[in-house]
Amino acid sequence: MSQQRSSLVSSSDPGPRTTDPSRFLAACRRQPVDRPPAWIMRQAGRYLPEYRATRAEAGSFLALCRNPELAAEVTLQPIRRFGFDAAIIFSDILLPLAPLGVHFAFPDEGGPRIEAPLARPEEWEALQPPADGVGTSFVAEAISRVRAALPADVALIGFCGAPWTLASYLVEGGTSREHAAVKAALFAHPAELGALLLRLADAMALYLRQQVAAGAQAVQVFDSWAGALAEREYAEFVVPALARLLAALDDLDVPRILYLGGGAHLVGAVASLPIDVLGVDWRTDLTRAALATGKAVQGNLDPAVLLSSPDAVSRATRRMTAAAPPTGYIANLGHGILPHTPLAAVTAFLDAVRGGQ
Amino acid sequence: MSQQRSSLVSSSDPGPRTTDPSRFLAACRRQPVDRPPAWIMRQAGRYLPEYRATRAEAGSFLALCRNPELAAEVTLQPIRRFGFDAAIIFSDILLPLAPLGVHFAFPDEGGPRIEAPLARPEEWEALQPPADGVGTSFVAEAISRVRAALPADVALIGFCGAPWTLASYLVEGGTSREHAAVKAALFAHPAELGALLLRLADAMALYLRQQVAAGAQAVQVFDSWAGALAEREYAEFVVPALARLLAALDDLDVPRILYLGGGAHLVGAVASLPIDVLGVDWRTDLTRAALATGKAVQGNLDPAVLLSSPDAVSRATRRMTAAAPPTGYIANLGHGILPHTPLAAVTAFLDAVRGGQ
Repeated sequence: MSQQRSSLVSSSDPGPRTTDPSRFLAACRRQPVDRPPAWIMRQAGRYLPEYRATRAEAGSFLALCRNPELAAEVTLQPIRRFGFDAAIIFSDILLPLAPLGVHFAFPDEGGPRIEAPLARPEEWEALQPPADGVGTSFVAEAISRVRAALPADVALIGFCGAPWTLASYLVEGGTSREHAAVKAALFAHPAELGALLLRLADAMALYLRQQVAAGAQAVQVFDSWAGALAEREYAEFVVPALARLLAALDDLDVPRILYLGGGAHLVGAVASLPIDVLGVDWRTDLTRAALATGKAVQGNLDPAVLLSSPDAVSRATRRMTAAAPPTGYIANLGHGILPHTPLAAVTAFLDAVRGGQ
Repeated sequence: MSQQRSSLVSSSDPGPRTTDPSRFLAACRRQPVDRPPAWIMRQAGRYLPEYRATRAEAGSFLALCRNPELAAEVTLQPIRRFGFDAAIIFSDILLPLAPLGVHFAFPDEGGPRIEAPLARPEEWEALQPPADGVGTSFVAEAISRVRAALPADVALIGFCGAPWTLASYLVEGGTSREHAAVKAALFAHPAELGALLLRLADAMALYLRQQVAAGAQAVQVFDSWAGALAEREYAEFVVPALARLLAALDDLDVPRILYLGGGAHLVGAVASLPIDVLGVDWRTDLTRAALATGKAVQGNLDPAVLLSSPDAVSRATRRMTAAAPPTGYIANLGHGILPHTPLAAVTAFLDAVRGGQ
């Protein structure tokens, strides 16, 4: 790890720091910061040549996730290159489902596939949360390694999938555009699907606690497919599961971030959840989200902007940060960075957040 | 057509009618009606066995669209079976792009494919609107046939794709989940993509005028992919193109409907457009949309509800109509009906709108 540490130290200076050890954690808690902290969802990913090299070394995406040394390495790569204010542990939201008996694959194209999608209530009931940490210790080990290698002022984020988003993968069998199968399941078997969401919440709470115990200083719950549902169903079925998941972390002193994909219409529904930060996409106005919830907000540049020119990225980023709340704001994209994003676009994004050109 | 007419007359009675010749047109104009009119987006489609038979007879989806007799037949089929208050001409939003030099195919799975996606501004500039009606006369002929066969109180709707949604198909080359290519094009070449949207608006205005001349009594502009954009870009680039398209119909006495897919955050952006009806999906609250725009509203049951039980469909439909505005409301789904929807679900939906159980 000493080599990594030295490359971190020699990375380009990310600008003046606040007196708080972590600009990111300060912003999560709505404390004053000298400038917005910045990180990017999926920052350890295919747009980085060093990621692609490590991924090739690992042999497969799953092998990379399950190898603590290599998972730590790819988690650190974007910090070394860009000096983000936070690292997020490299993993995938489906991994903690393996201990529940779910089998999946990550083909090179087309997103993950669940080998036997769970279409029926009997199959949902068969999913039982394992004991704490069983089957996901490689994530905990990767977190320990990353935390040991990170500078004190770079925060480490643990994460999990939200119950609804995980349920969509389980029922649809993969990434879905319409989410028709999981929604049909919800409308046909509301009690049983609601119970599945609660069971997934329990499993994810254990998983996040394991990550915090290993060194994660904040946690993010990804509800990437939140926007598939109307507010009524989201409030009735999903919010209680999120509340259960988040409340199970009440005794831990870590900021809780909820990321809502496509959730412009759901901001009111999540306002009462015990979260510190609401992460939103480019369709959700940052200021309106902050006012409606009273939380810190995170986001929300459209990742497609980064496929245009560095100048356009700078302009759009400066417009975003200028309109964002002065405290309680974390700069990010509104969704994961796209694999074919040029590195210069990330530099332009970060320079703009840091007050450069 | 006499056989079709007689089967129309013998269809089950859809309940008492208003004194207006068309309940649908009255609701578009926010006139009082005895009950909400109802139709379903993609009501002439694969969920209907008689549609599948005619589709097989035609040989292909495109052959069906381009055969006025068969296109009229499938347009009428759902009216005969269910007694909807409006028919919508059977076609596809891509068809009027053929006269602009765009080649496409409709494989049985995976949605339409543009043969040579238009990635570069030079390619966008090469698209020039043809003279009025050139290349789409089969649609006009199908409309004439349907209008002649429809009872006077069933309205006939013409339609086109919105400029943004068409541009997404043109640039992405097909149905996209992330719309990253077309958005990157917009951010990289805003002036040129804006010009493409205006050019598509002109072409679609001609196409809708042709449909109205042939007998369409209302028109719907489908912006199915509206929700890919943030409000800022939608207001800056898309709304002007929609305004141009819609204003080109000012002299026609037909209600104009704009359907916004995923557009809960865009309701304010479209409020000033010259439309009579705003069609919304299940994520957009009907009453809020009506209040924010002052327009009639159309929608918005989640199509996935129809994959559950008839009882659940009834409950959800009654909840929807009870919460909808008393005037200026058209019952519909929030998106096209799904191909594997059971017929009994459609009956349950219509019975609930008509005040049955």
